[in-house]
Amino acid sequence: VVALAQDKRQQRERLAALGAPSPPFQAPVDRGGLLAFAERHGWPIVAKACRGGYDGRGVWVLDGPPAAERLAAQAAAEGVELLVEGWVPIERELAVLVAANPSGQRRTYPLVQTVQQRGICREVLAPAPVPPALAEQARALALEIAAASGVVGILAVELFEAGGRLLVNELAARPHNSGHYSIEGCVASQFENHLRGVLDWPLGRTELVAPAVATVNVLGVEGHDDLSASLPAALAVEGAHVHLYGKRARPGRKLAHVTTVGTEPGEVLARARLAAALLVTPPGEEVKA
Amino acid sequence: VVALAQDKRQQRERLAALGAPSPPFQAPVDRGGLLAFAERHGWPIVAKACRGGYDGRGVWVLDGPPAAERLAAQAAAEGVELLVEGWVPIERELAVLVAANPSGQRRTYPLVQTVQQRGICREVLAPAPVPPALAEQARALALEIAAASGVVGILAVELFEAGGRLLVNELAARPHNSGHYSIEGCVASQFENHLRGVLDWPLGRTELVAPAVATVNVLGVEGHDDLSASLPAALAVEGAHVHLYGKRARPGRKLAHVTTVGTEPGEVLARARLAAALLVTPPGEEVKA
Repeated sequence: VVALAQDKRQQRERLAALGAPSPPFQAPVDRGGLLAFAERHGWPIVAKACRGGYDGRGVWVLDGPPAAERLAAQAAAEGVELLVEGWVPIERELAVLVAANPSGQRRTYPLVQTVQQRGICREVLAPAPVPPALAEQARALALEIAAASGVVGILAVELFEAGGRLLVNELAARPHNSGHYSIEGCVASQFENHLRGVLDWPLGRTELVAPAVATVNVLGVEGHDDLSASLPAALAVEGAHVHLYGKRARPGRKLAHVTTVGTEPGEVLARARLAAALLVTPPGEEVKA
Repeated sequence: VVALAQDKRQQRERLAALGAPSPPFQAPVDRGGLLAFAERHGWPIVAKACRGGYDGRGVWVLDGPPAAERLAAQAAAEGVELLVEGWVPIERELAVLVAANPSGQRRTYPLVQTVQQRGICREVLAPAPVPPALAEQARALALEIAAASGVVGILAVELFEAGGRLLVNELAARPHNSGHYSIEGCVASQFENHLRGVLDWPLGRTELVAPAVATVNVLGVEGHDDLSASLPAALAVEGAHVHLYGKRARPGRKLAHVTTVGTEPGEVLARARLAAALLVTPPGEEVKA
């Protein structure tokens, strides 16, 4: 399971063997492979490092032969194995978490929408605003993948919605950023169920505790190294649950997140965004919200 | 505030000065004082150590002169200062938590019912099943006491309901057993608001996240020293949030609590009771629920 989670080529091959809907792909590929793949599927193409990328690193959207040749040369020089996928016109990114224990109990968390910017998850909306049939399809697909992979603990199944269809994007066999909302938003959080799962204890309930939950990730910004100085201001936002990670601040790095819970999705998201904006605002400065 | 919270005589005197409804009392009292008080108010009377009692220790219901004389002699020998209160036919015990910060912000948690056995709180039901007018009266009384006491952080106001009236039983200026339900049951727990309060940060929301919340305290039993061995069984109860305190087990000592959250008060309480009963059942034995 760990190999599967760490190696995107193994993921794609296993998902293909399962018949899970996926973008077209090929791996490994060199310069000639990238060009031939684009010949068949059209530009742009999406190249990925098979191992080691995260938060948008190790993923490249290539718009033509020069970009492909540059990347292939660099990857060859650095010994990075590449895979290539067809570019998909994504309408929404979605995710389902599955909790599992060795006794065979499996539970899905609600389907969520993840809002990405430059490959980094910025917001998570639970439940995802999609038709019930699509949510049920995502749930069934995630359960099937979890069963086939033999995962215990948490498996995150990241999905694309494209043309009304679901495609599997990636798997992560661990508590996942798309599940942080579950700390306040679900009866048992992804962390609790990860432990229950690996200990082969009965799994906790995964349903939402309220109609709407939003999580907004907080990325480091230039010139504000100590988010804790802004904590009282962020906590003045009613219902904002602020989680500081205690990591060294760096622009673009995930340093914290804010979760809010309520009944109106728009209002819940607005409050989480405001608290997140306050966190990256030095005390006394005007908030850019 | 600390002196007030630790000394029941100071509490009674301050509450009387505030005009807060209280049982009749006198302090300090010796043998003669106990007997004269009973003469005026009738037997039984309730004697309390002014300092140091908790969980039913330091409280004695005295049914006549021999019991009063025995206690007075023992207290005099041990240098324990006593106060005496009139015995009240209690219909229900209730509690309100107030969160406060030095800036003057104050918020009340919902009125809860506390179910006591031998002076130990066994169950907490939120919200208390009382008429709204009584709940509002309790809330106003608790706010008044919090304002007068100058408390910051959490103040627990324990109340008696007797003959449709509220009487103040005791104050505790700290996160309190009657508020453990707030960890899962409220937007911001009593612990979070205690810290926000003492740091003079904005207080978090105190309302319930669901219509019904129940907490059942788990007391040590003879012959089962390791509750953690029963944890998987207790966690199999859907929605049971189990908190083990990691204290050395001793019969009658509070070792853990279970909280459940839901819509039907009776069903929520039944689940919490079942999980609590499973925790004190050695694995493999039949549960006494």
